[in-house]
Amino acid sequence: MKYQGPRGTRDFYPAQMAWRNTLTSAWRKVAIRNGFEEIDGPTFELLDLYKVKSGEGIVSELFHFEDRGGRELALRPEFTPTLARMVAAEANSLPRPIKWFCIPNCCRAERPQRGRLREFLQWNADVIGSDQPVADAECIFLLVDLLAELGLRPEHVHVKISHRQTVRHILAKLGVPEDKMLAAFDLLDRRDKLQPAEFTAGAAQLGLDTFAVERFEQMCRRKYPADDLAHLCRSIGLDGHLKDLEILNEQLRAFGITPWCEYDLGIVRGLAYYTGVVFEVHEVSGAERAMAGGGRYDQLIELFGGPSLPAVGFGMGDVVLTNVLYDKGLIPENVLPSPDVFVVPASEQAVPRITPLVAELRRQGIHARFSYKTTLNVGKLLKEASTVQAAYALILDDRSAGGIVSLKNLRSGEQRDLPLSEVPAAVMRNK
Amino acid sequence: MKYQGPRGTRDFYPAQMAWRNTLTSAWRKVAIRNGFEEIDGPTFELLDLYKVKSGEGIVSELFHFEDRGGRELALRPEFTPTLARMVAAEANSLPRPIKWFCIPNCCRAERPQRGRLREFLQWNADVIGSDQPVADAECIFLLVDLLAELGLRPEHVHVKISHRQTVRHILAKLGVPEDKMLAAFDLLDRRDKLQPAEFTAGAAQLGLDTFAVERFEQMCRRKYPADDLAHLCRSIGLDGHLKDLEILNEQLRAFGITPWCEYDLGIVRGLAYYTGVVFEVHEVSGAERAMAGGGRYDQLIELFGGPSLPAVGFGMGDVVLTNVLYDKGLIPENVLPSPDVFVVPASEQAVPRITPLVAELRRQGIHARFSYKTTLNVGKLLKEASTVQAAYALILDDRSAGGIVSLKNLRSGEQRDLPLSEVPAAVMRNK
Repeated sequence: MKYQGPRGTRDFYPAQMAWRNTLTSAWRKVAIRNGFEEIDGPTFELLDLYKVKSGEGIVSELFHFEDRGGRELALRPEFTPTLARMVAAEANSLPRPIKWFCIPNCCRAERPQRGRLREFLQWNADVIGSDQPVADAECIFLLVDLLAELGLRPEHVHVKISHRQTVRHILAKLGVPEDKMLAAFDLLDRRDKLQPAEFTAGAAQLGLDTFAVERFEQMCRRKYPADDLAHLCRSIGLDGHLKDLEILNEQLRAFGITPWCEYDLGIVRGLAYYTGVVFEVHEVSGAERAMAGGGRYDQLIELFGGPSLPAVGFGMGDVVLTNVLYDKGLIPENVLPSPDVFVVPASEQAVPRITPLVAELRRQGIHARFSYKTTLNVGKLLKEASTVQAAYALILDDRSAGGIVSLKNLRSGEQRDLPLSEVPAAVMRNK
Repeated sequence: MKYQGPRGTRDFYPAQMAWRNTLTSAWRKVAIRNGFEEIDGPTFELLDLYKVKSGEGIVSELFHFEDRGGRELALRPEFTPTLARMVAAEANSLPRPIKWFCIPNCCRAERPQRGRLREFLQWNADVIGSDQPVADAECIFLLVDLLAELGLRPEHVHVKISHRQTVRHILAKLGVPEDKMLAAFDLLDRRDKLQPAEFTAGAAQLGLDTFAVERFEQMCRRKYPADDLAHLCRSIGLDGHLKDLEILNEQLRAFGITPWCEYDLGIVRGLAYYTGVVFEVHEVSGAERAMAGGGRYDQLIELFGGPSLPAVGFGMGDVVLTNVLYDKGLIPENVLPSPDVFVVPASEQAVPRITPLVAELRRQGIHARFSYKTTLNVGKLLKEASTVQAAYALILDDRSAGGIVSLKNLRSGEQRDLPLSEVPAAVMRNK
């Protein structure tokens, strides 16, 4: 009987793992050069922690269980509650602004489908303790810096940006009363999943007439390139009410990333806790789910028992991102680490020298391999060395007693004799 | 109200995370240079997978839960069942020997205590498809290579080695019948937790008289340095019956690691599935739990539905290892990534140049930071640069309009003017 892994999870064999490591290394490298520090928390938290921001409704989306003491625990579906808990616990001793990133695995009890698994990796980055638009812009720059690092360009992906306050202005102007704003955001967020009639009915409940619904729909459908904010202002008749977006636009220009960005008032982000800028990264054709999403959430740290601390951040999963990179031909073919040198015995006398030599090379930081086969067939062993893509073969024959060995470059075919003591330097030079 | 993380789990703030990354990087680097390839599997598996090797008894030690379809799942307490499942699924297409490592987080529903947490990291490495002692020795060499990489020496830690067949010979010679061998291994494994009277009673049930129990106890208490196998043979009267250990000993000598190793017949490893060599890494004083443990398990892959494939491997947790390194003063003080350069405006005119410059430096792979503070107080900004341990401060005054900037080495204090275009090379040189 063979056993299966659980539905919606992945086995990472060496080739898949090598790509996963390439991706997480890129996330880590780009976050660090942007001045973010890495953190992490437990894979599971007390179930109650996830109700703080999302209410009881979240429970059915979680894998949850009890410990022996009857405490209810849940696998993390996202990192933000852990982040808020950690900031709240040490808020007074942390230097500000706090700029943190992490790469947690997250688990959700949902039906697996394209772009959605039950376990995935998510790159999170947050700036906490600054209400300045430069923090929002730096988060968006970090996203773009990562996209570019992976080979994507503005013709492949867009950062779609909206602002809660801008949309609130528009909704108010169209006749939505203040106490129905959250319901309006929710309707807006679900509009792609609703029939037109359902949408209109929902809008009517919010106090919008047919004309207002149509006008509103139009605004949500249009995209405005960043840098063309004036056009957006004129188009929605909101001159002078877009100060937040105007300042953000200046910052995006300073960071040099306006070609990647567009304003799209249809971006809401379902989560009730966003308070300002919201953004998502989408593949331009619109065929895939969002590759990343985030925004400003100025009240969340307080909700988790911390001081009042403004914050902005995002999450980017590995699944949709990998699908998009694959479709664009941007997944490197072979990123498996290959050996620097493969040590080959060419005479009976050399056999007992192989293991001590391999051990010494490894201690010096060199990726050295040898064959478990007890053969002196050099051709066969060189074939094994080529199969594992070793850069060099180090061949030991009788002359190795006198310290002379043969180094063969397996890419160029060039082979030369040299003293054993010079091997580490010769191998490392081409590393 | 402040929220707590679950008992027995850890929050990794930047300093703790930096150490965790240092440790996992060392695990990864050393495994790769020893020719192992990285893999991973899901964080949770079907509960049944864990019963294959450990029976129903394991369930109380697991965090387990149901998905919506009523399937029983469990958080992985160890990686071996996943490994066996993955090998069994692809056994025919994998090159042999398979040399794999992984760094999973593992979760156990047990009472937290020193050296034991409910969630921890575990470095696993296995060689599958070879029954040769060179595979056993290479696993032990990998462990020693890692210990040395972290600064440990033979006076700090020992690899304690035993062999199931050797202990079986001794037990048989003392009078334990074949059908009571597993019970005898189990008694041996628990002897440190039993009162002497309990141990003697247990031994009597296995058919051992008082003399045999005492003789057996003595053998388990004595340690024999590797290379001194002859002494062990004489001492237990088993000349000629230690062939397996003799061949292993030769391999350990070839790898140059006998100073780290000793034979200790008291090492059993509780798990019934080991079939040959077993080993553990211990801090020499014996005050801590085992830092790592493993051995040969030639029947396990078959048990999980795969072909008959001999295998050897080990697991090393991060908790005891970190405790030992801490006690020996081997945890580096500060391993947080620090900025290559901190960009400082020294004139009003320079302010708008800061963000584009930082963006460009980051795109070139340079870890560049700037202050969110809107101040031109250079002293204050240089202080901020020093606090985050930047290597250089890059100071922009009015001359930056003409492309001339000032680069200050914050370690030496040396400061010089140079064209902006030369900054990346100057900063990278000292990286």
